[in-house]
Amino acid sequence: MHREDLLPALGRLIPSDRLLTRPGALAPYESDGLTSYRARPRAVVLAESADEVIETVRLCHEARVPFMARGSGTSLSGGAVPVEDGIVIALNRMNRVLRFDPVARVAVVEPGVVNLAVTAMAAPHGLYYAPDPSSQSVCTIGGNVAFNSGGAHCFRHGMTANHVLGLRVVLGDGTVVRLGGDSLEQAGPDLTGLFVGSEGLFGVALEITLRLVARPAVYRTVLAAYDNLQAAGDAVSRVIEAGLLPGAMEIMDRLAMDAAEAAVHAGYPPRAAAVLIVECEGEDAQVAAEFHALMQIIAASGAAHMHVAADDEERARIWKGRKCAFSAVGRLSPDFIVQDGVVPRARLGEALAAIEAMSRAHGIRVANVFHAGDGNLHPLILYDGREAGAHDRAEVLAAEILRLCIRLGGSITGEHGVGLEKRAFLSEMYDAGDIDCMRRLRDAMDPHRVANPGKKLEPSAEMPASHGMHPLERAGVISRA
Amino acid sequence: MHREDLLPALGRLIPSDRLLTRPGALAPYESDGLTSYRARPRAVVLAESADEVIETVRLCHEARVPFMARGSGTSLSGGAVPVEDGIVIALNRMNRVLRFDPVARVAVVEPGVVNLAVTAMAAPHGLYYAPDPSSQSVCTIGGNVAFNSGGAHCFRHGMTANHVLGLRVVLGDGTVVRLGGDSLEQAGPDLTGLFVGSEGLFGVALEITLRLVARPAVYRTVLAAYDNLQAAGDAVSRVIEAGLLPGAMEIMDRLAMDAAEAAVHAGYPPRAAAVLIVECEGEDAQVAAEFHALMQIIAASGAAHMHVAADDEERARIWKGRKCAFSAVGRLSPDFIVQDGVVPRARLGEALAAIEAMSRAHGIRVANVFHAGDGNLHPLILYDGREAGAHDRAEVLAAEILRLCIRLGGSITGEHGVGLEKRAFLSEMYDAGDIDCMRRLRDAMDPHRVANPGKKLEPSAEMPASHGMHPLERAGVISRA
Repeated sequence: MHREDLLPALGRLIPSDRLLTRPGALAPYESDGLTSYRARPRAVVLAESADEVIETVRLCHEARVPFMARGSGTSLSGGAVPVEDGIVIALNRMNRVLRFDPVARVAVVEPGVVNLAVTAMAAPHGLYYAPDPSSQSVCTIGGNVAFNSGGAHCFRHGMTANHVLGLRVVLGDGTVVRLGGDSLEQAGPDLTGLFVGSEGLFGVALEITLRLVARPAVYRTVLAAYDNLQAAGDAVSRVIEAGLLPGAMEIMDRLAMDAAEAAVHAGYPPRAAAVLIVECEGEDAQVAAEFHALMQIIAASGAAHMHVAADDEERARIWKGRKCAFSAVGRLSPDFIVQDGVVPRARLGEALAAIEAMSRAHGIRVANVFHAGDGNLHPLILYDGREAGAHDRAEVLAAEILRLCIRLGGSITGEHGVGLEKRAFLSEMYDAGDIDCMRRLRDAMDPHRVANPGKKLEPSAEMPASHGMHPLERAGVISRA
Repeated sequence: MHREDLLPALGRLIPSDRLLTRPGALAPYESDGLTSYRARPRAVVLAESADEVIETVRLCHEARVPFMARGSGTSLSGGAVPVEDGIVIALNRMNRVLRFDPVARVAVVEPGVVNLAVTAMAAPHGLYYAPDPSSQSVCTIGGNVAFNSGGAHCFRHGMTANHVLGLRVVLGDGTVVRLGGDSLEQAGPDLTGLFVGSEGLFGVALEITLRLVARPAVYRTVLAAYDNLQAAGDAVSRVIEAGLLPGAMEIMDRLAMDAAEAAVHAGYPPRAAAVLIVECEGEDAQVAAEFHALMQIIAASGAAHMHVAADDEERARIWKGRKCAFSAVGRLSPDFIVQDGVVPRARLGEALAAIEAMSRAHGIRVANVFHAGDGNLHPLILYDGREAGAHDRAEVLAAEILRLCIRLGGSITGEHGVGLEKRAFLSEMYDAGDIDCMRRLRDAMDPHRVANPGKKLEPSAEMPASHGMHPLERAGVISRA
């Protein structure tokens, strides 16, 4: 098929009200949560069935026109930015639950189902879907699969990859395959694990079999205040050394708390340099015992103050403050870069001290809010894009932090993915042979490289590697892309 | 390179005392733990370094001669049976620990390191390596990686794939790549997960980065006796429904207990139809609370008798009986087939009742010993190979059990792998497109199919699909291969 024949062919496949081609209709699909990247697609298919997705992929494959599937577009790494002049397959209308078996604790969902909707469906049966990205009220399971999303409670429960049992997928060349099944134990190589986190480069998930887990009988949540950030980081190492497995361990520094307090009155301690939020979950007596051991460790870790959530309402407030922290930072600074990196947990205190030193050396404020249990850092680098050079200086610091993560034996991304944003860093983390191996696997699934090309595995030359957006860009006065 | 030039080239690479070619020297490498399959390799390379392995693989790739890497050869699926006239790369001499960081809880080992040796090394630091296959005192980490080995304690801790952080690998075409790293969170697709469980079809692991975990402060182990097997299976579902996460949940039926008692005096109850072994582990007070809840569930599940291990010695005896059960079954029957399948945990009772009915219908004894928490069944099908047709009847029953696992939504293997043994069943579990996808990935790593070809992904026509071994075969009087 010739490239020019694609749109007419899509027109025969998809009703015109669900095949968007006018510039005004395409505009909302030009970018994702990392708004500094922008590209104009040729068309958007609002798919309503797996067959429509499969046929769209096959047509794109035949016409050699790239496509990118997306859900709510909450990606923070540019992973859901369209390929210029390519096709966007929007999956939000594919939000059906195809099967729900509360006894087997399995749900089979379409990719457009919102993360929190799975839990809402499962709740009457005492079950829930464990991975809880901060955007869980809007982000979709398909996107969670593409980026192997994490969340505050993934310390105990594992990432998305640990909760996806099976997938029905259309590969980049239009082949439809089933990966995995209803059980965690499968006979093949772990193709489900290969697909989860592949950022749309292998194909599109059509059906996702999720593992549900029992809602804990009780939660107990403590907020510990520290005089310095490193002490909070070291406390996390001690909890882990003691063999405890809390549901979540999160750290926020002063700046992050200020932002969260301004947005939600979470009740964080007003003078602490950092807070550590630790939550135990499980059966009543067991949680009581674990919580007792935890409180002793925290008391011995130099915490200035410890406060236990009195009830569910207070617990909800603590978490709401934590989950809104990213967006709330906008109250402190006109612009900021959300960084995402990982360090080995045992080196958390060391990493935090290094980031503080970098922040001081550059004279740039950094708010820290992160999944401490996983060693997954989210430094928020604050700057004012109206000041000459401020953006570039913030970029330099963001890159230094990523290189610190690599040097300490960690990763350039914990959950946001490589996307467009971090392509340049992939070759600092992996050598050429490793990246070639990833490319070979991609080519085995998508020989013509039509599935979300240009992301992750490609060098970053063709698009700007910059984060953040100048206010004039945001106002539409100037454009980088 | 011509095929005939391979041996001379290997001769220049490997000293003659480590390049075995005489029939007598090759004999020990002709089969693995599934002794009914047998093949004669052209040569065995006793590799002592990663470079020797890499060069051997490259020579095989150039000469288009297949190779198979092996450790102790404990595979129960024929996964370590050589390719006829191919090269065996024996890795047992590559048993060095390359790095051990007790603070980061990471060990980098060569593939020939024995599973239990990792724990022995880590023990003085309060750490251990969690996956514990029954053969852990002899099986090697390289083999564990190839088959994604499980073990009694993998219910709580996960399989080998959950404990391998990174790999240095030589692919089938001689490319050396690093997959993963020191952290569970990586930037690429999960290539470590893809490689773990790939049964030698993608290449050979040269260095394996293992995650170590803290040894629990205390264990508490209960042995519950049941009047019927299904009740024991249902008890497991109830423990999981209650949200408890014991370290291990294992079931043995009467026949398996009789075998274990004959081999080791484990102290299993003499009249019970089945025992359920559940072990809690962790910090003192937490274990006390969990164990209390567990005992209430077990008491309510219809257990005829409950016995708590009084001390470490008794706990060790209980586990010794469980771990020797496979080999001990040889005391009850001259021949037996070790089956390995998975059913969803919630359908465990149903699966056990069905296996009992099949056993009765065929008039063939089946001993059940299995990782109940994982739904991973190991029915041992007892027969006497001297009786005409007995072997074939046992094969029919073994196949019926596998098909039951598929029908219930489980898997044809929990941990033993597909190997040679279950190639015919792969196409019953996966459709042609799925298997083609696996083959495409293999071809991306090993374009000339020299890495352990004929296993797992190939149709089983060219080798007999039979289990077990006739006594005359074992005595070397007749040979099937």
